Amino acid sequence: MKDKFPPQINETPEWKKLEKLALKNLTLGNLFSDNPARFRDFSVQTEHIFCDFSRQIINNEILKGLVALAEAASLKAKISSMFKGEKINLTEGRAVGHWALRVPAGKPAVIDGKDMSKDIQEVLGRISAFTKKVHSEKRIRNIVSIGIGGSSLGPEYLAEACRPYARNGMKLAFVANVDGTDFAIKTSGLDPAETLFVIVSKTFTTAETMKNAETAKDWILNNLDGNKEDLIKKHFIAVSTARDKVEAFGIDPENMFTFWEWVGGRFSATSAVGAAPLSFYLGHENFEKILEGARWMDQHFLKAPLDKNIPVIGALIDIWNINFLGLKTRALLPYSQLLWKIAQHTQQVEMESNGKGVDIHGRKVEFDTGEVVFGEPGTNGQHSFYQELHQGQVIPADFIGFIKPAYPLGNMTDKQVDHHHELMTNFLAQPDALAFGKVSDDPARTFEGNRPSSSMLLKELNPFTAGALLAWLEHRAAAKGFMWDINSFDQFGVEHGKKLGVAAREAMLGDKSRIDAFNPSTRRMFDAIMNGELPS
Amino acid sequence: MKDKFPPQINETPEWKKLEKLALKNLTLGNLFSDNPARFRDFSVQTEHIFCDFSRQIINNEILKGLVALAEAASLKAKISSMFKGEKINLTEGRAVGHWALRVPAGKPAVIDGKDMSKDIQEVLGRISAFTKKVHSEKRIRNIVSIGIGGSSLGPEYLAEACRPYARNGMKLAFVANVDGTDFAIKTSGLDPAETLFVIVSKTFTTAETMKNAETAKDWILNNLDGNKEDLIKKHFIAVSTARDKVEAFGIDPENMFTFWEWVGGRFSATSAVGAAPLSFYLGHENFEKILEGARWMDQHFLKAPLDKNIPVIGALIDIWNINFLGLKTRALLPYSQLLWKIAQHTQQVEMESNGKGVDIHGRKVEFDTGEVVFGEPGTNGQHSFYQELHQGQVIPADFIGFIKPAYPLGNMTDKQVDHHHELMTNFLAQPDALAFGKVSDDPARTFEGNRPSSSMLLKELNPFTAGALLAWLEHRAAAKGFMWDINSFDQFGVEHGKKLGVAAREAMLGDKSRIDAFNPSTRRMFDAIMNGELPS
Repeated sequence: MKDKFPPQINETPEWKKLEKLALKNLTLGNLFSDNPARFRDFSVQTEHIFCDFSRQIINNEILKGLVALAEAASLKAKISSMFKGEKINLTEGRAVGHWALRVPAGKPAVIDGKDMSKDIQEVLGRISAFTKKVHSEKRIRNIVSIGIGGSSLGPEYLAEACRPYARNGMKLAFVANVDGTDFAIKTSGLDPAETLFVIVSKTFTTAETMKNAETAKDWILNNLDGNKEDLIKKHFIAVSTARDKVEAFGIDPENMFTFWEWVGGRFSATSAVGAAPLSFYLGHENFEKILEGARWMDQHFLKAPLDKNIPVIGALIDIWNINFLGLKTRALLPYSQLLWKIAQHTQQVEMESNGKGVDIHGRKVEFDTGEVVFGEPGTNGQHSFYQELHQGQVIPADFIGFIKPAYPLGNMTDKQVDHHHELMTNFLAQPDALAFGKVSDDPARTFEGNRPSSSMLLKELNPFTAGALLAWLEHRAAAKGFMWDINSFDQFGVEHGKKLGVAAREAMLGDKSRIDAFNPSTRRMFDAIMNGELPS
Repeated sequence: MKDKFPPQINETPEWKKLEKLALKNLTLGNLFSDNPARFRDFSVQTEHIFCDFSRQIINNEILKGLVALAEAASLKAKISSMFKGEKINLTEGRAVGHWALRVPAGKPAVIDGKDMSKDIQEVLGRISAFTKKVHSEKRIRNIVSIGIGGSSLGPEYLAEACRPYARNGMKLAFVANVDGTDFAIKTSGLDPAETLFVIVSKTFTTAETMKNAETAKDWILNNLDGNKEDLIKKHFIAVSTARDKVEAFGIDPENMFTFWEWVGGRFSATSAVGAAPLSFYLGHENFEKILEGARWMDQHFLKAPLDKNIPVIGALIDIWNINFLGLKTRALLPYSQLLWKIAQHTQQVEMESNGKGVDIHGRKVEFDTGEVVFGEPGTNGQHSFYQELHQGQVIPADFIGFIKPAYPLGNMTDKQVDHHHELMTNFLAQPDALAFGKVSDDPARTFEGNRPSSSMLLKELNPFTAGALLAWLEHRAAAKGFMWDINSFDQFGVEHGKKLGVAAREAMLGDKSRIDAFNPSTRRMFDAIMNGELPS
C-alpha cells in the first residue's frame, strides 16, 4: 500500500519538524514577555467574530509550522473540493454538501456536477409556506420533533441558542431517546389537538425514531376523536428521503420535506431537519438568518488565508494540542446560558466525524484522531470542574463570549455591575488565570499556569451568529479530518453495536440462538432483565 | 520533606508491580477465553446493585495488585477515619461528614468528637414541618432553587432522577448561572404569587447566587402588592450557615435551614441543600428514601471487603486506567433518560475533588490526578459520540441500566419489544461490541475491540436507588483521593480565577488600575466589552 498512496501526515517532514518544536518547554509567561505584539500576531478580527488564540502554547515558528503542515496535507485544495461538490466521502461515494444548503437563492450550488440550488430552494419554499399556514391557522402551539443524533442535536442547539426569537406561545420539544421517559416527559401537559409531530429520519427506519413515532401516533389516535387517516395527516409531518415509508406511516406526501444523501446526519441542521422545526418555532425569516450566518462562515472558511481562518486555526491548534502536546480532551466553555447545548452538538460533530482508526485509503493511522469535547456554560462550569482545569490535568479550553446579553437583567451602578457584566468578568478572568497561574508559599494554593485556551468574542447571540457558530464547529472538525486524511463523513464505527443490539432484540423475541452473540457476563444480565430480578 | 512523610503512592513497590503488569498486552478476548469463570470473578452482587467489571482490562493478578495498592495506601483506615468524623480535610482543618446526614434518627453520627445526630434530625424535622405546611396551604406551586455548583448539581440530579415521584402540580427549577438568561427563562411563565425561592449559599456571599437572589427579590416586589417585608418572608427561604446575612436579606430566620462546615458543597445534596427543594418537590417521605439509599451505599462502602466493594472497585479500576493504562477520560453512560444530569454532577464530584496538583502533605504529585468525566444517556450517546469509543481514542466507559422502566411505554408482542426492552438491547450490546470488536475485510469496518467498560444493573430507578447512586459516585471519588493521598475535599484551584474576576469587576466599576491584572490580549477584549464593539 505504501507505494500507491501519499505518505501519511505523520510521516511528512512538516510533522517531524513540529515534533521537534514540541520538545521545547514553552511557557505562556515567556511567550507574552518575549513578544509585545502577541495579541496582534495571534488573533483574527472579522466583522462578526474576534478570535484570540494568544493563550495557546505556540509561537510564530510553531504557527508557521502548522500552516506548513496544512499545506503538506493540501488543506486548501480539500476545502475547495468540498465546496465544489466533489465526492470526497470516498467510503460512501458521496459528495459533502451541507454548505450548499446555505447558498442564497439564485446562486449556484453544484453537487457532483449538478446545480442543486432550485431543489434546495424548493424545499425551503415549501417549508416556509407550510409554516405560514400553520402559524396563521393558530391551531398548533406545540412542535415535537422526533429524531436522534444528527436529527436532534444540531436543531436543538439552534433552538436553544435562538430562544429569545421564538414566536410567542410556540413550544418546541425534541424527543430522541428510545427510553419511554423521553416521550412521556416531553409530551406531558401538551394538548394533542395543538401538537404537531415532525418525524425526522433519513431512511425512516431508525429504530429509536420509529418506535417514538409509533408511540406518538397512538398518543394522537387515543386522545383525539376523528378519522384516523385525517388525524395522522393533521398531526404528523416528515423530514426524510424515504417517500414510500413516509406514506406507509400515513403522512401526507405533501407534508414530507426531503434532503439529500450528500447531507450527513450530523451536518444536517441547516437542511429540512432543522428548517422544519425551527421555522415553526422561530418563524421562517429567523431560520433564514441562521442560513445567512452559516453562509458567512462558509465563505470565511473557503476564502480566508489559512493563518487568518478561524475554523482552520482552531483545527491546527487542536492538532497541535492532540498530536504534539498529547492533550486529547478539550473543554468548550460558552459564557452564555443559551449555548448550553453547543458542547453536546460539538461532541457529535467532532467525535463521530473524527474518531476514526483508518485513513481515506484504508490504512491504519498511528496517531490519535478525534478528541473528547465536553463543557458547560460559564459560570456554572467554574463551580464544577474548573478545579481540574486549574490544578489537575492540562485540558485546552475554548471560551466564547458576547458583548451584549440575550436577556438584560440588573443595572450598572457605581457599586455594582449588571448580570451580564458580572458574567463577562469571569469570561475575562479565567483564560488569564489558566495561562499565567500564581506562585504562592502554600503549595495547595500554587497555580502552575501554562494551561492553554482560546477566546472568541461576538457582539451578540442571535440567529445569524448562532448559524455562524454552527458552521464554525462543523468546519473546524472537517479541517482536522482533512489534515489527518481520514473520512470525517462516514460512521461505520456504530454499525457493530447496532448489529449486536438486533441480536439482543431477537433473543428477547424468543430466538434463543441469538444469545450466543454475547459472552457469559452479558448473558447473565440478559437473563436478569428477562426475569425481572437482579442476578443472584 | 521526604523524611517526614510516608512515600508517595507511586513510589511504593505495589505501584511498581502494577506498572510492570501494565506492560503485558492483555486482550479481553483472551481474558474471557482463559477464564471461563470470569463473570463470577469480576462481578459484585448485592441486594440493590449488580456490578459487572469483567470487561475491564484486568486479570486476577492485576485485581490483587490493585487491592494490595489500596492496602499500601491504607484505604480501609482512611475510609474508617471519614466515618469516624475525624478531621481528614487537613488543609481546611475540617471533618468530612456528608455520610452523617444519612444516619437514621436515634443512631450516633459523631463528627469531630461530637454526636451531631440531634442537630441533623432537628433540621430535617423543621424542613419536613415547613414542607407539610406549604403543601397543605396549596399556595405555592413553583419552587425555584437559586444556587450554583454543589448547591445545584447534586439536588438537580436527584430531582430529575426522581421525577416520576414528583408531587402533582409542583414544579421545581434550578437557577445557577449569573447569566440573566438562566433567571429569565426559568421564571418565565411562573406566577410570582405561587412561587417560593430557596436561596442556597453556605456563606450567603456567592457572587452568582446573591446576584440572582437580588433579582428574584425585585421580581417578587415588582410583581406583587403588599408589605415588602411580608412578601420577602412569604416568598423566600434560605439554606445557609450565615444567619446574619440571611436576616439582612429579609428572610425570616425561622425559614433558614442550616448545614455544617463539615459538609462540602459538592457533597451537600443530602443536607438541607437538597432536602429543602426536594422535600417540596417530591414530598419529605421521598427525600427520606433518598437518604436511606445513600445510607445503604455508605454502609456498603464502609463494611464490604475491598474486592467486593462497588465504589472501591470503581476507584481501583479508574486508577488502573488513568495511571497505568494512560486512559484519563471516562464516559458515564446511563441507559435511563432520567439520569441525564448524573454526568454533570459526577463531573463536579470527580474533577473538583481530585483535580489536584499536591498531596495532603503539600508535595507535588508526579502522576495524573482526576479524570474528565462526560456522558449522555443511552441511546442518545450512541448516535453522537460512540463512533469515537468504537474506533477512535480508547475511553473507558461505565454503563448503568435498570430492569424496570420509569415510564412503561409500548407492548411486548411476538414481533416487537416495548420501549424499555429496546433500550436494554443497546445496554447489553454496546459493552460487548466495545470489548470484543469484529474483524472485517474492509478496514473501515474493522473494530479492534479491547475497549474497557463496566456495567451496573439495578432493579429500578426510584428515590432509594437514586440516593444509592449519589453515594456511589461520591465514595468512588473519595476512594481515589484516599489512594492518591490528595485532599479531595478542598478546592483552592478555583480561587485565583475568582480573584481575577474581582479585578475585572473593579476595573468595570472605574478602577482603571485593576486592568493591570490582565495581559494586552485580555485588555483588548475588556475594552471591546466596555465599548460595545468588537476589536478593530
